[in-house]
Amino acid sequence: MTRKELINTIREKKSFLCIGLDTDIAKIPASFLDFDDPIFEFNKRIIDATKDFCVAYKPNIAFYESMGAKGWESLKKTVDYIPNTIFTIADAKRGDIGNTSLMYAKTYFETYNFDSVTVAPYMGSDSVEPFLKHPNKWAILLALTSNQGASDFQFEDLKSGKKLFEKVLETSKTWGTDENMMYVVGATKTAELQQIRKLIPNHFLLVPGVGAQGGSLEDVCKYGLNKDIGLLINSSRGIIYASNEIANFEEAAAAASEKIQKEMAKYF
Amino acid sequence: MTRKELINTIREKKSFLCIGLDTDIAKIPASFLDFDDPIFEFNKRIIDATKDFCVAYKPNIAFYESMGAKGWESLKKTVDYIPNTIFTIADAKRGDIGNTSLMYAKTYFETYNFDSVTVAPYMGSDSVEPFLKHPNKWAILLALTSNQGASDFQFEDLKSGKKLFEKVLETSKTWGTDENMMYVVGATKTAELQQIRKLIPNHFLLVPGVGAQGGSLEDVCKYGLNKDIGLLINSSRGIIYASNEIANFEEAAAAASEKIQKEMAKYF
Repeated sequence: MTRKELINTIREKKSFLCIGLDTDIAKIPASFLDFDDPIFEFNKRIIDATKDFCVAYKPNIAFYESMGAKGWESLKKTVDYIPNTIFTIADAKRGDIGNTSLMYAKTYFETYNFDSVTVAPYMGSDSVEPFLKHPNKWAILLALTSNQGASDFQFEDLKSGKKLFEKVLETSKTWGTDENMMYVVGATKTAELQQIRKLIPNHFLLVPGVGAQGGSLEDVCKYGLNKDIGLLINSSRGIIYASNEIANFEEAAAAASEKIQKEMAKYF
Repeated sequence: MTRKELINTIREKKSFLCIGLDTDIAKIPASFLDFDDPIFEFNKRIIDATKDFCVAYKPNIAFYESMGAKGWESLKKTVDYIPNTIFTIADAKRGDIGNTSLMYAKTYFETYNFDSVTVAPYMGSDSVEPFLKHPNKWAILLALTSNQGASDFQFEDLKSGKKLFEKVLETSKTWGTDENMMYVVGATKTAELQQIRKLIPNHFLLVPGVGAQGGSLEDVCKYGLNKDIGLLINSSRGIIYASNEIANFEEAAAAASEKIQKEMAKYF
């Protein structure tokens, strides 16, 4: 998907909601276990219930991977089921030496037809570049993450006066453009969003951490929005597990995502 | 596998060779394509040919993942086929927020019975700790990698006077012990090995980059060996693709690994 197509979808739907498909066999309604592929069946119904309110889906690859080959089949069916007007993110946090990142890019952009994949920055340019060579595909690089451990290294003060996450932004933005790179910035890190917007005014940010992790939609919008919206705000558990009753989990997921979409509509 | 068991195996075999199973369908002898599972069949024969000369196998997960569900079946059969006296490393470079890293740990330690998995440090303590809670299993954290992009961030000068990779070592070594953590240090970074050994004298180091990437076994041993050997030196392409002829690829792989083992035997 191109940047222009993504922005058009966002404007049409008045939404910049990304729904995280962190689908856990232990958390979905128990009656799904009667299906051949409980994970896909659950995802299918969540997608049907929520697709009008969101502009992106983000399967969290760990949850599929943990189920072995069967999980990857569920993932394949899920990606293929997502309407192609909706942006897809493989939340995989991959990154390795060049010939290996090339295989990860092949995985997510060819074997599975994702629009984008999240990538870890520690190994530097040649670990990210293979993700930038596929037309209309995106690398979403970790900059400032939403978890507590983010403070271990990402805020490290450098001799240059910058913090590590700032250096990651400044260096990595030269590897691609705002048409094939986005950045992960946690919703719990709004204090840094202003500074991040100075460094990368145009890039889209993928923002996890609203909801279960405690981040605020309003604060993220206040400091993170740009002229093209420029945000994909993710909610996972708050939507897909809004109810764990088979009788109403779809309605609950639809309601939870519509509620966020309505808050977002104020910014258009 | 415990540290003691690993050290015993190393001393018995006079080897600290790790063989990287970066098995690429495009590079194995073409006649393997006649098998139901070409990747597993190739790995099986490589393992049979080389198992007396090495103490660890390291499947590079990207190569399996790129083949979708079928690749994960090849991986499962491969891990199950490796004799349980040999240490297994899932070279996956995973790392995410706590509840997600928990799923990655489940993948490699339960769904697949690996002894260890490589982990990226950028997201900090809670992204690594789930890998440290399984008895006799190991997290192998990226410290200083062998690729060119390592210089983008890992050598960054910090205000404290340290470099980023030193900070990663100092902070992360408190998360576990030398009985459940190892570190990745590239063979192309021997100049830093002395300093690294001051920070972590006892930990095992997984050392990629000898061979195709240009690192020297002699230099790595000179600065990296400790009282328990403390090194697992990896070779991938130089062994598994020593010949791409079906007639002699096993003999060539055996000869290439025996040659390295004989060089290693000098250090016992």
